[in-house]
Amino acid sequence: MKPEANLTVAAIGEQGLLKILHQFCPSHLIGDDAAVINHRSDHSLVITTDVLVDGVHFSDGMAQPNVYTTSPEDVGWRAVAANLSDLAAMGATPFGITVGLSLPGTLPVSWVERLYQGLSSCLEQYQTVLWGGDVTRSSLLTISITAVGEVQPQQVIRRQDAKVGDVIFVTGDHGASRAGLELLLHPERQQELDTVSFQQLIKAHQRPQPRLDVPPILREILPEFRVGGMDSSDGLADAIIQIARSSGVGAKIDAEALPIPLAVRSWVSPEEARKWTLYGGEDFELVLTLPRHAAEQLQEKLGNSGKIIGEVSIEPEIKLSDSDLDLNQSFQHW
Amino acid sequence: MKPEANLTVAAIGEQGLLKILHQFCPSHLIGDDAAVINHRSDHSLVITTDVLVDGVHFSDGMAQPNVYTTSPEDVGWRAVAANLSDLAAMGATPFGITVGLSLPGTLPVSWVERLYQGLSSCLEQYQTVLWGGDVTRSSLLTISITAVGEVQPQQVIRRQDAKVGDVIFVTGDHGASRAGLELLLHPERQQELDTVSFQQLIKAHQRPQPRLDVPPILREILPEFRVGGMDSSDGLADAIIQIARSSGVGAKIDAEALPIPLAVRSWVSPEEARKWTLYGGEDFELVLTLPRHAAEQLQEKLGNSGKIIGEVSIEPEIKLSDSDLDLNQSFQHW
Repeated sequence: MKPEANLTVAAIGEQGLLKILHQFCPSHLIGDDAAVINHRSDHSLVITTDVLVDGVHFSDGMAQPNVYTTSPEDVGWRAVAANLSDLAAMGATPFGITVGLSLPGTLPVSWVERLYQGLSSCLEQYQTVLWGGDVTRSSLLTISITAVGEVQPQQVIRRQDAKVGDVIFVTGDHGASRAGLELLLHPERQQELDTVSFQQLIKAHQRPQPRLDVPPILREILPEFRVGGMDSSDGLADAIIQIARSSGVGAKIDAEALPIPLAVRSWVSPEEARKWTLYGGEDFELVLTLPRHAAEQLQEKLGNSGKIIGEVSIEPEIKLSDSDLDLNQSFQHW
Repeated sequence: MKPEANLTVAAIGEQGLLKILHQFCPSHLIGDDAAVINHRSDHSLVITTDVLVDGVHFSDGMAQPNVYTTSPEDVGWRAVAANLSDLAAMGATPFGITVGLSLPGTLPVSWVERLYQGLSSCLEQYQTVLWGGDVTRSSLLTISITAVGEVQPQQVIRRQDAKVGDVIFVTGDHGASRAGLELLLHPERQQELDTVSFQQLIKAHQRPQPRLDVPPILREILPEFRVGGMDSSDGLADAIIQIARSSGVGAKIDAEALPIPLAVRSWVSPEEARKWTLYGGEDFELVLTLPRHAAEQLQEKLGNSGKIIGEVSIEPEIKLSDSDLDLNQSFQHW
């Protein structure tokens, strides 16, 4: 028996495992939020799959079925939103999704119905359809969603396409979802906020809005489509780092321009606010690199919900204007 | 609290749950092996999702990682074959698949690699590609596969299209997969068979061959494409019943013509052989309804691997020629 026969998945970690599994995929399909498949000369298919596991991604576990921190409707909404965000991140228009559900027989039917109501609400809002899927019995509730969309081949947004001299533009604010989670985990902190701010942050966490509105605007203002980017589901800092690494460039971020939500800025310390904005994750906004004039037009079209936060640089470091730290280096320490 | 709030999934069963979940899908997408999405006037997308759960679908459970009855390569092959069979059942040509994998950290990396080797072998044999997917940590190994293909809108094979007067044609034999499972579960029975038969039956179970070769032949011999049908993954009897119910017709099956594999016929009792052939399942062959002349041509093109086993009748019963039993009624009792 070879020694590596006993090597476990835990021992090599997620990145180690992905490196092995990527060998089984054509290399041009790897490295973005979704795979782009050249289907016809006038359109490519874009496909993405996400797996959510009970107790890991959306609840306190089936062992205590009454203590879900997220309602089944919100689980459904967020699952669809995450997948549609992956499509938006590629510049694609969604068509539909399939759902692979494995569930314990002890699960209340009403929970499943409410899950599907949440899925459907999000699908409806984005004119997308549930195509079907599979349901099977299991001891552990697991939801696997595959979303399919399409994009014109020359209008794909990729991480590797950041160009030196382009600005870095983010849609919306960042950190609101993390702030909402804080309020759900520590309900007593609700009293530190006014009602409007409270509701806004909770909603940011429970009902994130994938930015499917952005690609059509980009196609309009930039017909030559010089755009790079991805979504910020794993955090704003992560998105900037991924884009810079994939494109072989660096980034200079203006610390004053960080998209910290007003409700967060006026609630927690500046350090906490910055941390949530850079590393909170699950805001499902887009982080884009594009020419300055286009970014300014995009900002205007979005009614100023979005801003330029820095620029793509030739030096490989990722610098915050008020810090000597390289974000790329410091990321591991958070 | 409404009384139904406590109703569990186990209480209403799979069919009850599906009935509820179907309300969330457009009705025209329901009822076949895969959903057909009208994408462009010259082609439709076909999409199908299957979820496999450790301990339910492919092993004795992670609790005893060394007693898998199916090798990881075979788990991978069978998972892909089942999905590609769903595409073949719709008359579609496959493009690619995504894999959503949730797995325990204790799983050996070599198991995952071997799973992907099995997936890839089957994909390669059918010129299909792994597009990517998602890997996440979980206490239970679960594999969710989504396969996408395409078909011309007028060349879709549907369950509801059986026409009175058409014959019922099955590709290949049925019952070999069930026989192979018997040999895996009871290795001592191997001595009851010659080596060639033994290997053939084991292979039928471990390496089923989805019938992607059949739709191109149908398009060639039946340009007007008068074909109904589905695959026989849940058994030959189930396929006949599903087709008849969906089409509002009946079927007369010639008991002498049942596609019992030679290796099974010469091994077990006639009753056991018939049972495996009708109800064994997982043969991943196609059960088609089409005009007799086309069926005869198809049989010839397939080198006689496939045969006419009966015809579509106006009376709603499903009759075996040598029995008074209605297969539709007796099915529940097996």
